Amino acid sequence: MEVITGGVAAAKGFEAAGYEAGIKYENRKDMALVYSQSPCVAAGVFTSNVAKAAPVRWDKNVVTNSPYAQAVIVNTGIANAGTGTAGYNCCRQTAECVAEGLGIPLDSVLVASTGVIGMQIPMDKITAGIGNLIRIKTAGEQAGTTAATAIMTTDTVPKEAAVRLEIGGKTVTVGGMCKGSGMIHPNMSTMLGFITTDLAISKALLQEALSMDVQDTFNMVSIDGDTSTNDTLVVLANGMAGNEEIINKDDNYYKFLEALHYVNETLAKKMAGDGEGATALFEAKVMNAASKAEAKLLSKSVICSSLTKAAIFGHDANWGRILCALGNAGVSFDPDIIDIYFEGESGRIQICKEGVAADYSEEEAMKILSDPEVRVLVDMKMGDAQACAWGCDLTYDYVKINADYRS
Amino acid sequence: MEVITGGVAAAKGFEAAGYEAGIKYENRKDMALVYSQSPCVAAGVFTSNVAKAAPVRWDKNVVTNSPYAQAVIVNTGIANAGTGTAGYNCCRQTAECVAEGLGIPLDSVLVASTGVIGMQIPMDKITAGIGNLIRIKTAGEQAGTTAATAIMTTDTVPKEAAVRLEIGGKTVTVGGMCKGSGMIHPNMSTMLGFITTDLAISKALLQEALSMDVQDTFNMVSIDGDTSTNDTLVVLANGMAGNEEIINKDDNYYKFLEALHYVNETLAKKMAGDGEGATALFEAKVMNAASKAEAKLLSKSVICSSLTKAAIFGHDANWGRILCALGNAGVSFDPDIIDIYFEGESGRIQICKEGVAADYSEEEAMKILSDPEVRVLVDMKMGDAQACAWGCDLTYDYVKINADYRS
Repeated sequence: MEVITGGVAAAKGFEAAGYEAGIKYENRKDMALVYSQSPCVAAGVFTSNVAKAAPVRWDKNVVTNSPYAQAVIVNTGIANAGTGTAGYNCCRQTAECVAEGLGIPLDSVLVASTGVIGMQIPMDKITAGIGNLIRIKTAGEQAGTTAATAIMTTDTVPKEAAVRLEIGGKTVTVGGMCKGSGMIHPNMSTMLGFITTDLAISKALLQEALSMDVQDTFNMVSIDGDTSTNDTLVVLANGMAGNEEIINKDDNYYKFLEALHYVNETLAKKMAGDGEGATALFEAKVMNAASKAEAKLLSKSVICSSLTKAAIFGHDANWGRILCALGNAGVSFDPDIIDIYFEGESGRIQICKEGVAADYSEEEAMKILSDPEVRVLVDMKMGDAQACAWGCDLTYDYVKINADYRS
Repeated sequence: MEVITGGVAAAKGFEAAGYEAGIKYENRKDMALVYSQSPCVAAGVFTSNVAKAAPVRWDKNVVTNSPYAQAVIVNTGIANAGTGTAGYNCCRQTAECVAEGLGIPLDSVLVASTGVIGMQIPMDKITAGIGNLIRIKTAGEQAGTTAATAIMTTDTVPKEAAVRLEIGGKTVTVGGMCKGSGMIHPNMSTMLGFITTDLAISKALLQEALSMDVQDTFNMVSIDGDTSTNDTLVVLANGMAGNEEIINKDDNYYKFLEALHYVNETLAKKMAGDGEGATALFEAKVMNAASKAEAKLLSKSVICSSLTKAAIFGHDANWGRILCALGNAGVSFDPDIIDIYFEGESGRIQICKEGVAADYSEEEAMKILSDPEVRVLVDMKMGDAQACAWGCDLTYDYVKINADYRS
């Protein structure tokens, strides 16, 4: 498996584009299109939030009931959530405009929106944007990056990943893009993520692969504990790699799963590290837990703790807050046997030994905690299960960004 | 029922004191003693955190197995959590010192600690502090306030409440104090809270009253989502009011319950409004829910949302975040029928009508959101159950306080 560039437009037959439609922000691209030259089987996972945005309801229907999907249209600035029937009609009109422009069936168009909740979409700008996106869409590395840039809101960098591997004697590519970076606590999915591949695979297996892998990747990320109304992660597979279609869980399926996992995990970590206001990616790895489920609860509890996140921002080795967060995970364990370590590119240090403070240098700890990627390792000494969760520090800028996001 | 001053020392026979023992902070009182002239029946609720602090484990044993309690000793600065066997021994020595000094049984002494996790308590300072507290303890209003001040950590004001009422022809007083103000997401209890009363009541009914009322008061507060290792709420009843002992759920029991509820709710709201870095008390009231349990989940989800809390700090009527938080509460509802209002001393305004934006003045909303107590009212239109939850805004100062709390 080779890591390559190109993101969502890396796989054969996929084209992409980004465009400045002037929906809400000024001087930045705010619409993106992903298009496949041939119909794709599609799989998707969506937010568990009861107040689902209009495009989430639209996409769930397409992914569930439609045999193929062929295009994804995305706008930023307005989330089209909390918009009632009028909002759903806007979403349908958006899909109609794309279907007509591309000459593809209405039920093969996926729609995604992100931004402020409770405002209506300006349809004139959306329609004009779609016309331009269809005109300028193109294949190639640059197109993927342009699309990844166009779906950003408070993100500071575009987030892409892609790999190439051989399956059944054919070269297969899996690529994707996603965006954060607030209201991020994916539950069944992430804010917005789009994966493309030229693999030939059955729709059922594609959905199964996605649903399974998301549990260990996007669903292990939290920026601020708020599961968005708009979480959407879809994968499109157009079969243009020419491999024999994967219809069983054979070796080829697991090869693809490995590639999908790499792309999902890479995107998930990029999203966590670029959380609103973040200065560091904060990873919690729990080892030797009694079960995988418990390891996940424990690691996620640590990266969700506001107090721990603030301590990471302050480069403060306040491991008591980590112990506190572990204790709140809803998992039974003996606090008096666990070990805790901090790890970064500057080194590794044990800060807690058998439940009490280890003999460590505060200076060395401070150095590790100043690294751009900080990892806490927790040894539960209960079994052999492990899990990772990804978040970021809690900073002044997170508060600043969210105290006046609408204005 | 009459609201009075005096806090934890308001009820007959209770004495209190605060003292500067120099445990961790400088130039501030950091130890408190509450003492009853006669033995009390005691009830308590404690943290659900798996990593329970030593004093929590000590107190659970006293409350469960000992017929009476007569004193509470509190220190701030160090939480005596994450301290292993050595920490538990410090806790026992603390209780021994108090028991000896006051001439009361060891198993009638309750111990509470709050502060940094993972450090050992300096026993010499604790012992000296206890000697001084016993020497200076006294009855009266001033003593209650001194004790309430001495248990503060990042709190900015002491938190007290007391009421007087007539039960069975006798004057009964119920008073209390508590402290916050970070790592506050009480689950079974609050950080540290102490209620005293001169009521005569059976131990079983006292525990039942406390366990029930805490569900609607302290457990509906969250500052930052982190349930502390040290949460402790105890109530001491010494019977000195001279009423006939309450042993059944008669009218007198419910009269007491009302008084206890007033004291608990008042303290809980004071704690929420004085959350770390807070500029406003943020109350979420959910009306017309299908059940009380659902109303509680919904209201708590709103006050726990980081994004909503940041919007309150920014005086931004970003109701979409409230809708998002409701949608994450784990409750099924129809987002297209709910109404949302903001309310403060400046007035009341509807911001969401049947799931979409109402026609409101941003200027008026901004004015209400600048009030020191901001309430969001949500009408679910599903039934007739309601609940309130209390939190605070998320500010730069919360991050500042917690980025360098240990230093």
